[in-house]
Amino acid sequence: MDILNEVLNKIKPSEEDKEYIYKKIEQVLEKLNGLDVQIHGSFRKGTWLKGDTDVDIFVFFPKSLGKKYVENEAVKLLLEKLKGLDITIAYAEHPYIIVNLDGIEIDVVPAIKINKGEEPITAVDRTPFHTEFINSHLTEKQKDDVRLLKRFMKGIGVYGAEIKIKGFSGYITELLITYYGSFVNTLKNASKWKPPVKIELVKPQRNFQCPLIIVDPVDPRRNAAAAVSLKRLAEFSIASKYFLERPSIDFFFPKNPENGKIKGDILITIIRLKDKVVEDLLWGQIYKSIEKIRNSLENTGYKIIDIQAYGNSDKVIIATQLESRNIGKYYINRGPLFYMDVDGFIKKNENIWIGEDGRLYSIKERKNGNIEDVIKNNISIKYNYSIEQYWLDKEPEENCLKQFLVKTPSWLK
Amino acid sequence: MDILNEVLNKIKPSEEDKEYIYKKIEQVLEKLNGLDVQIHGSFRKGTWLKGDTDVDIFVFFPKSLGKKYVENEAVKLLLEKLKGLDITIAYAEHPYIIVNLDGIEIDVVPAIKINKGEEPITAVDRTPFHTEFINSHLTEKQKDDVRLLKRFMKGIGVYGAEIKIKGFSGYITELLITYYGSFVNTLKNASKWKPPVKIELVKPQRNFQCPLIIVDPVDPRRNAAAAVSLKRLAEFSIASKYFLERPSIDFFFPKNPENGKIKGDILITIIRLKDKVVEDLLWGQIYKSIEKIRNSLENTGYKIIDIQAYGNSDKVIIATQLESRNIGKYYINRGPLFYMDVDGFIKKNENIWIGEDGRLYSIKERKNGNIEDVIKNNISIKYNYSIEQYWLDKEPEENCLKQFLVKTPSWLK
Repeated sequence: MDILNEVLNKIKPSEEDKEYIYKKIEQVLEKLNGLDVQIHGSFRKGTWLKGDTDVDIFVFFPKSLGKKYVENEAVKLLLEKLKGLDITIAYAEHPYIIVNLDGIEIDVVPAIKINKGEEPITAVDRTPFHTEFINSHLTEKQKDDVRLLKRFMKGIGVYGAEIKIKGFSGYITELLITYYGSFVNTLKNASKWKPPVKIELVKPQRNFQCPLIIVDPVDPRRNAAAAVSLKRLAEFSIASKYFLERPSIDFFFPKNPENGKIKGDILITIIRLKDKVVEDLLWGQIYKSIEKIRNSLENTGYKIIDIQAYGNSDKVIIATQLESRNIGKYYINRGPLFYMDVDGFIKKNENIWIGEDGRLYSIKERKNGNIEDVIKNNISIKYNYSIEQYWLDKEPEENCLKQFLVKTPSWLK
Repeated sequence: MDILNEVLNKIKPSEEDKEYIYKKIEQVLEKLNGLDVQIHGSFRKGTWLKGDTDVDIFVFFPKSLGKKYVENEAVKLLLEKLKGLDITIAYAEHPYIIVNLDGIEIDVVPAIKINKGEEPITAVDRTPFHTEFINSHLTEKQKDDVRLLKRFMKGIGVYGAEIKIKGFSGYITELLITYYGSFVNTLKNASKWKPPVKIELVKPQRNFQCPLIIVDPVDPRRNAAAAVSLKRLAEFSIASKYFLERPSIDFFFPKNPENGKIKGDILITIIRLKDKVVEDLLWGQIYKSIEKIRNSLENTGYKIIDIQAYGNSDKVIIATQLESRNIGKYYINRGPLFYMDVDGFIKKNENIWIGEDGRLYSIKERKNGNIEDVIKNNISIKYNYSIEQYWLDKEPEENCLKQFLVKTPSWLK
């Protein structure tokens, strides 16, 4: 397909790109002299995208030092060693260091050295075996197909295993190409997926309850695709189907959304974070808040069209779209059948009548009617933040909100 | 109970009342000289209420003349005979004549003479056996209890077997007193009713599917309570329970409803009938129309608190109470799961997205949004009429609408 070559030309790094990154890595390695270091990540596997390098330098410590050491002491040691470079501490399951060298980001990650097949002690200890597996199973051509798949998934918005996305990790794109052989064959199969989807490069050693199950060939007790939500799986499947029917570069590089009509009543809630946050924790809290907002609005009687959250670690936008914000102050309240115990209902209620179905009914006044407050009260974020709310009454400027109005992905229609 | 004596004083006709009615009956009987006539109705059974006499003069024709004769020819004969009196033709299953004599209404009803146990040919042919059964089973004291029960049922609005009420007929009140023995005992039992309620003065000769089954002792293939709706049964049961707990004359003679608050949005539709109507036909059409209005409004997305119809054969008021008339122009439309056939959905819809549940969703525009039109379009009355509609925005003057606002019956709280 010409489109695929066109995309590959844009995303495949040149030899010079590789040289440049390698030089940066060496600057870091020099600092870590004397430690047990290995290069990992998509750079090491040869599956990274131009301008989007993911270099991980792993520093291994012996098992005898224990998990606590890696979580607390190792980072101090690394910080000492890396002094003089532009560094930030980041937090995943345990802290690691991000080194910024002229635009190249290199993660320096402490880990525990384990043997193949051994139970990992920290979440990252399996990484050397992942790297080994991918490098020993993928040809250069297939690595380019991994690049295409990554760009395709980024384009349609399903790439990334973090809580914010709940999509596909880099490792999964590599396993999919390993399993299905090529980019096009992956899409052909994905277009026919029906969950639960099981991909068994090795026999699973556990029962998994997920929409997508990709048994980790390095650890058959692990589902490498546990993070993939049904929504992301569905989006990838439908996009695969439509790409095969009507190939277009839009899938890889989507156009900016066009202007859309405001349908229903849309409340925009802007949350500005005042603290430094751990992204996964923040988005976990945001999605829980949205679930609470949804339940509370529905219980109050509002009909929700859609709720979405956009943003980053500084600012999050929650867009809440209702069929109508005017649902009335009163609602019908269904009571017991007349031959049940009705005394309590009659005492507690006003405007009581008996319906055709033999049940008691009454009219009740809505509490928590105010939508702004319902949303504010159900946001539970454990960082400091300020909130701002407004009803959308004109074409928004933010692309995320334009997309929220249009909804239909540019590649779908 | 003092209350019961107080009520009986108001509703039990005096000897003079009886004399007066009897004299009026004789005037009619004179005219029908030579025909096979019998007096029936509550007057004959001694269960009528003061000022509310129900006198039926039955004129019997031999079976050999057939149903058609009674339906068409008999009335002509009777009209001829009754010439000179103030008469109107009325229609039930077949036509009959209403004679108005100084405020006393006497129905002259043609019927076919059948033997006891024989299959009736017209709906009224069983009447002589009903009269006979009641007169041979009820004592004078029990006939007063029938009067109390009738007045109680009128007071709480469940008296009348016509379509408009779907409640209890006079004959049923008599059968209930026959079965339970007294007014108070009827209420005691009714307060514990749980449908289907079976009252078997004789063994039924059929299986009945009704909330209330009172086997007609005169014809065990017939449920004498077939007209009683679940709603009226429930109202009678709850009123019975509350009267026994807190006796009050309000049950028999309810106070006028007090002023109530307008809750939600209430559309009043006034239908003025231009033709003479058969009440049962009209109300059948009105209730069917209301069912259609209810379905149509609910399908459009409105939340209905209550719909009721009030009125008579000249003018009917339909009150439609909604939680809100502003439900928004757009609604969420749930589509197929992503792995089903989605092409049709995608082609036909706008603003498409994939939900957390793996389904496709879209936003749709409501059709039939206008409530006034929804109601107008769903009224199917087969008489000529004019329509007038307005949104209730101040305290109504009509008692029925005051009651519609308050809902709770005066005797309930």
